[in-house]
This record gives sequence, C-alpha cells and structure tokens, in this order.
Amino acid sequence: MHHDLNQLGLFEAAQAIRAGKISSTDLVQACLDRIAQREPELHAWAWLDPDAALAAARKADQQAVRGALHGIPLAVKDIIDTADMPTECGSPIYRGRRPSNDAACVAMARRNGAVVLGKTITTEFAYFAPGPTANPRNLAHTPGGSSSGSAAAVADTLVPAAFGTQTAASLIRPASFCGVVAYKATLGEFSLAGIKSFAASFDTLGVITRHVIDAQWMRWAMLGIQATEADTKPWEGAPRIGVCHTPWWQQADPDCQAVIEAAALQLARKGAKVSQATLPSHFSQLADTHKLIMAYEAAQSLSFEHDRFADKLSPQLLSLLEDGQQISRARYLAAQQLAATARHEFQAWKTDWDILLTPSAVGTAPRGLHATGDPLFSRMWTLLGVPSITLPGYTGQLGLPIGVQLIGDFREDDKLLAMARWVEAKLIHD
Amino acid sequence: MHHDLNQLGLFEAAQAIRAGKISSTDLVQACLDRIAQREPELHAWAWLDPDAALAAARKADQQAVRGALHGIPLAVKDIIDTADMPTECGSPIYRGRRPSNDAACVAMARRNGAVVLGKTITTEFAYFAPGPTANPRNLAHTPGGSSSGSAAAVADTLVPAAFGTQTAASLIRPASFCGVVAYKATLGEFSLAGIKSFAASFDTLGVITRHVIDAQWMRWAMLGIQATEADTKPWEGAPRIGVCHTPWWQQADPDCQAVIEAAALQLARKGAKVSQATLPSHFSQLADTHKLIMAYEAAQSLSFEHDRFADKLSPQLLSLLEDGQQISRARYLAAQQLAATARHEFQAWKTDWDILLTPSAVGTAPRGLHATGDPLFSRMWTLLGVPSITLPGYTGQLGLPIGVQLIGDFREDDKLLAMARWVEAKLIHD
Repeated sequence: MHHDLNQLGLFEAAQAIRAGKISSTDLVQACLDRIAQREPELHAWAWLDPDAALAAARKADQQAVRGALHGIPLAVKDIIDTADMPTECGSPIYRGRRPSNDAACVAMARRNGAVVLGKTITTEFAYFAPGPTANPRNLAHTPGGSSSGSAAAVADTLVPAAFGTQTAASLIRPASFCGVVAYKATLGEFSLAGIKSFAASFDTLGVITRHVIDAQWMRWAMLGIQATEADTKPWEGAPRIGVCHTPWWQQADPDCQAVIEAAALQLARKGAKVSQATLPSHFSQLADTHKLIMAYEAAQSLSFEHDRFADKLSPQLLSLLEDGQQISRARYLAAQQLAATARHEFQAWKTDWDILLTPSAVGTAPRGLHATGDPLFSRMWTLLGVPSITLPGYTGQLGLPIGVQLIGDFREDDKLLAMARWVEAKLIHD
Repeated sequence: MHHDLNQLGLFEAAQAIRAGKISSTDLVQACLDRIAQREPELHAWAWLDPDAALAAARKADQQAVRGALHGIPLAVKDIIDTADMPTECGSPIYRGRRPSNDAACVAMARRNGAVVLGKTITTEFAYFAPGPTANPRNLAHTPGGSSSGSAAAVADTLVPAAFGTQTAASLIRPASFCGVVAYKATLGEFSLAGIKSFAASFDTLGVITRHVIDAQWMRWAMLGIQATEADTKPWEGAPRIGVCHTPWWQQADPDCQAVIEAAALQLARKGAKVSQATLPSHFSQLADTHKLIMAYEAAQSLSFEHDRFADKLSPQLLSLLEDGQQISRARYLAAQQLAATARHEFQAWKTDWDILLTPSAVGTAPRGLHATGDPLFSRMWTLLGVPSITLPGYTGQLGLPIGVQLIGDFREDDKLLAMARWVEAKLIHD
C-alpha cells in the first residue's frame, strides 16, 4: 500500500493516521515520491524542501495527535505567508522574500498538526500573468489560475489538499480545469491575516481537495470546530436545486452547457427537486461591477508595487492598476452600492432553492500556458460573497475535466458542503 | 518663522510648500527640532531616522510638486508596514522586523509626495498593553491607545499628521485624551494592505491631525481624489444634529457629560437643529457584541503569535486570545447576525439627523501609563462601521482635554467631514 498513499483523500488519510494505520512519514514520503516523478513536467511548486517536510512528518509521528490534520501534508499557495518558507507572490519583486510570520490559515492548520509540504505556484499576485504550471490532465493546457499550482498538485495526487484564494475565479476555475474539488468560503469566513491583498471586497480563502469531505474536514479544523460523527454524514433528504444559467449562458461552451443539463437531469433522477432559477435580469451588470471594484481596489492594494517596481510588473497587471487609478470615487461608490443591493436581492430571491447548480467556467482548460482562462462564471458569485464549490466528474472537449459549481447562502457554508456531499455521491459515485 | 513651522497644520503647510513660501526641509527640520526637545519625556516614536527624513525632504524640495502632500512630514503607527523602516507592532516578537513593502496607505501618501518621518508607538498589536508614550498635556497621564504615539506626536506639534488605526477605540480615544482631531473612516474605506490585522470585521484606518481640513486633505490624497476649492469649504447651512447619549451615558464622567451638553447648546445657538437621538434600547447589547466578535477574530488573526510566542505576549492579550478560542462558531455567527441587523436598523433610524454628537471617551485621560483607558464609547460605532471624528476644544478634570465625537452615515465620510468643519468653527473658533 505504501507507494499509493499519495492517492488517499485528506479525510481518509487523517483517519488512518489517527488510527495508527499509516504514518505521516510514509504519507509524506509517498507525496514526495510522486512529486519527484511528476514535478519536472508539472511545475506546480514555488518552494519545496523534502528534508524539512520529512522531518516535520517524523516529528508528527513521534507526538500525540494534535488535531484534525495531524500528520497531513498540505500545499500553500504562494501569496500566503509562511515563516519558514519564502513567499514570493508569483512576482520577481518578492524573489526570496521571507515573511516573519505564518498567515493565520497556516498557523491554524499547523495547530491541528498539519505538515506544510511547500508553496504552490500562483499567477503574479493572484491576477492573470501565469507561472509555469501545466495542467496534469493535458500538459499542453493551462491548469487555470490563480491557484494554479494548488489545483495541479492536488489533481495529480502530489498532495491531498492545498490552500488557495479567490478574488474573481481563482479557486473554482483551476479546480474545474484540473478535475478536483474547490471550496470558496463565504466572504469573511476565514481570516486573511498574512495573505497578500488584491481587492479586499472580494479576497476569499478556500481549499482545493479531491473529495468534499476533505474540504469539510479542513474547514472545521481551521475554525476550531470539533466535528462529530454526525457532521461527516452527507445531507439527508433531497435538496431543492435551482439550475442557474446566469446571464452569461450563451458564452458557455456547448460541452459546458451539456454538462450542466446532464447533471441537472441526473440529480432530478436521484430525487432532487430541480427547477430553473432565473436571476433578475439586471444581475447581468454584476460581472462588470465586479471588474470595476476589483480594478479600483487593486490599484490601492498594490500601490507600492506599482510606484516602486512598475518595470517588474506584467503588462496585464500594470494595465489593470492604471485603469483602476482612473476610476473615480463616485463610480466606485456606485458600484459598491449596486453590489450591496444585489446581495440583498439575491438573498430574498434564492429562498426557493437550497443550492444553485451553475457552470464553474466557460468550458474546459484552454490550450497553452500563456493565459489561465476566463473568470466570467465566478465574478458574480464572488461579488455576492456567497460560498461556492466546484465538483469534478464530467469531461468535455479532448476529454478534459469540466466542473459543476454549487452556490449556497451567505454564512451557510456548512449546509452547502453537506449538500455538496449529496450531489457528489449522486453524480460521481452512483 | 522658521522655528514655528512645526505648528502649522497639514493643509496650511501643504499650501505653503506648494506656493514656495516654505521648504519641506525647513518644515521637517522644525519637526525634528521639536522632537529633539520633547521626545525624551514623550516617548512617541518607535523609529526615527532624522538624517533619512531630512534627505527625503531635500529631495522633495528639488522635485516638482508630486501631489497634495508634497514635502509634508507624516508619522506612521508601528503596526503599518514600511519598506525602509522597521515595523515592530509594539511586540518583542517583531523586534527589528523589516517588511518587504510599504502598506498601501504609506505608498499612497508617498505617491502624493509625503515624507515619512518615522514610526509611532502602538500598544502591543494595537490591543491594550501600552508602550512608553506619555500624554503631552500631562506626562503622568496615558495618551490613550492604541494609536498612542500618533496622538501624542500630533498633539505636541512634533508632526502635523499621523496614520492610526481603530478596531475598538484606538483613534478616537487617544485623540480625545491628547486634544487633537481623529478621523476614523467608514469600514472598508481605505485599503488595509500591509497593516497588521487584529479583527477584520472592525479594523479601520484613520488619521490624526490638529484640524479637520487636514484630515480631509489626507483623505483625498489617499483616495486619489483631486480636491477643488469648493471641496475645502465647510458645510453651508446648519446641520441637523442628534445628541446621542448612547446606552452608556451613566458610565460617562460628569465632566464628559457636561461637555456634550455644552457643545449641544453652543451648536444650537449657532443655528444647528439640535435634538435628542435615543437609540433603540437593544443597541445596549452592541458593546458586548463588539467584544465577542473582536475576541473571536483576534484569536484567528494572531494564531501564529499565540502558538509560537505565547511567552512574549502580554497577559491581557494572551487572555483575550484564549477567551476568543473558546467562543463557539454558533455564538460568533449570532453576534455577526446581530451586528448586520443593527447596521440596517441604524441606517433607517438615523435619517432624522445629519450627524450625531456623542462622547469620545468616558472622560479625560486616566492617570498612569500602565493602561490606555476604556474603549466603551467607540465600540458600538466601530461595530456599525460608520465614519466618526473626534474634535478637541473642551477640557475636563485637571484641565485635561475632552473630545466630542461626531458620527456620520456609512460611506458618507465626505459629508461628515464637511459638517465637522462647521462644528469645529462654531465650537472652537467662534
């Protein structure tokens, strides 16, 4: 079994370590072996110190179980600070930068016994300019971004779970492209202390895993929630699912559209109450509203980098920051007002459904590593601040993965994840 | 005139530099002279490099005017990152820490030509454990906290303006105790990138100055707003002012109560439409709601410091973090729900008044440097996320300053500041 340990899901591995069936050292070694084999063509890692990781695993094996993630190797997106590893934010400006502290999410994972395996490649400051990471399902295609290395590493069983962040579509899109689960929390759900800020109105932490229960387990650990046996059970009874085409349905590829319809049909067959959920038509403005607020806030957040290191910024980021500087305060406030109103309207509108089923991305991962794909199908949900999750299981063009996205209610992350367990069981394992 | 330049307000100094009437070098030298004289007993500075400050001022004098703050010396609270100066957060954990970047607010100030004079003393991580700073009005008394050095330095004319932050009362209280102006922005108004996080639901940037127009000028510069002549005029016409005793009026000292009543009378005499503004009685819960959310979030934000350096934390911070860890997710979410509801109720309730007049603190600065005073009279306003400003002009026990606090509407910072100009003129200069 030893050489397959890297394929265990996080929850399964955590239970096996706790029961003394496997050691953290063997698990970490299996991940390192897999990395040694795959990394030369995957390029998922910005920093990896195998000896340090093994030393941490050995230490975990010698200790009593510290928490829910005891001995579990995790990857950390490289815009998230780590006190013992460089954090370079995908930018030459911060080459070799050593933060003085762990981000709160890293500290909480370590409090629970996790072994930080290394740092995963991010696009430049989690915006569009990609790193070298390839899609493990087809190396000629992008893994998506900005949590590129996190999605690729989890998909290729280099590590059971990884932290990522999302300001537009940076968790959901790469997970959809690579064929894994990504859970983007409710806005404000997890502390962002020690994470490079891009646009404070939208920046959100999340996790990439291979199973929904792994994301639940990570969530509970990070919030200090003691999960009981009952919490790990999927939703009982059939959820009311709204199929939400969104105002951008015509921009979804045919294979993406077909997957949403197939999933809706399958879930209805399995007993879900499925109906069309048509958003108020003015919600079509929200993708542009998201863009405007993001540009305005990024121009503030990255003002130091802009003013001091413009020559080290990618053309696409420089252009965003300069566009952002031109946005008037009045336009920004009007956009924020529109977003606030939409959040209220959404809450009232959504009461007919427990969760929404909607595209995770325009289609499968585009060919080429020069760009990370279109964030269109997450902009509105990120703006609304609601929790979302993408589930794998379907494929489109060239056999590449296509995810389906589920949307929950603000602050109702636990309910969304429990329902996602139900959907996962019906779509994939049934 | 040279040796009095340190007494100029920020706006006045900025206009004088722009008009070529004074040089940044002379202004900075005047501040440094004043610092040399006062710092031995004031202890306002965590870091000061006079040669570097003078070099920056000389450079500003050689350049064309870069922006609204050209050549203006500023102080920066030491939880705000600076690339060229240490940032120690008032904690031995971060002694000598050198950030790799400027916080966004520092970068925006520098974009506008400001000269960062140095870093001002903060309480430990902007919570309760004080630094060595004394109150310039009476050295045996606390300057308040957590923006202790910023308030003391501005009050004692060591610098015309300083950045501070507030999570409970960390701008309003020290400014009230030291007899200066502090403007706490609407929650989310300014980027917090590069500022040590304590409780993300409340952390807010602000500025401490000696005149309201100085705070306005800083605000516009930081947001890239080109102010016109018209913007710098005070509010025209008399505001509708609600005198808000808050549910904690009985805990205000008699001199504080007397000051609010005197200010209300004076403003009514000057033409304001003044009436009592009685909050819904259940708002009395909001001080405790603020405490609970703050403890819960601080336990997350400072999890690294707690887990790795508990022995270097003050007893009061350690106790807060451990209390925070014990708060259940359900209690936290209930508190957040209560806060969200209160924000809506407040907005609807407040429409009868343009601004509220309310205590800035329980009373004057308490004697002793071992504690920074009670944050009670700002907790609710910080929780509501609304902008506030404290104005000096009154004194209480021992002749120490007492501020009066004005409260505006969410995102209506410009209106609040314009009205504060009106109030300032009627209270102080009339």
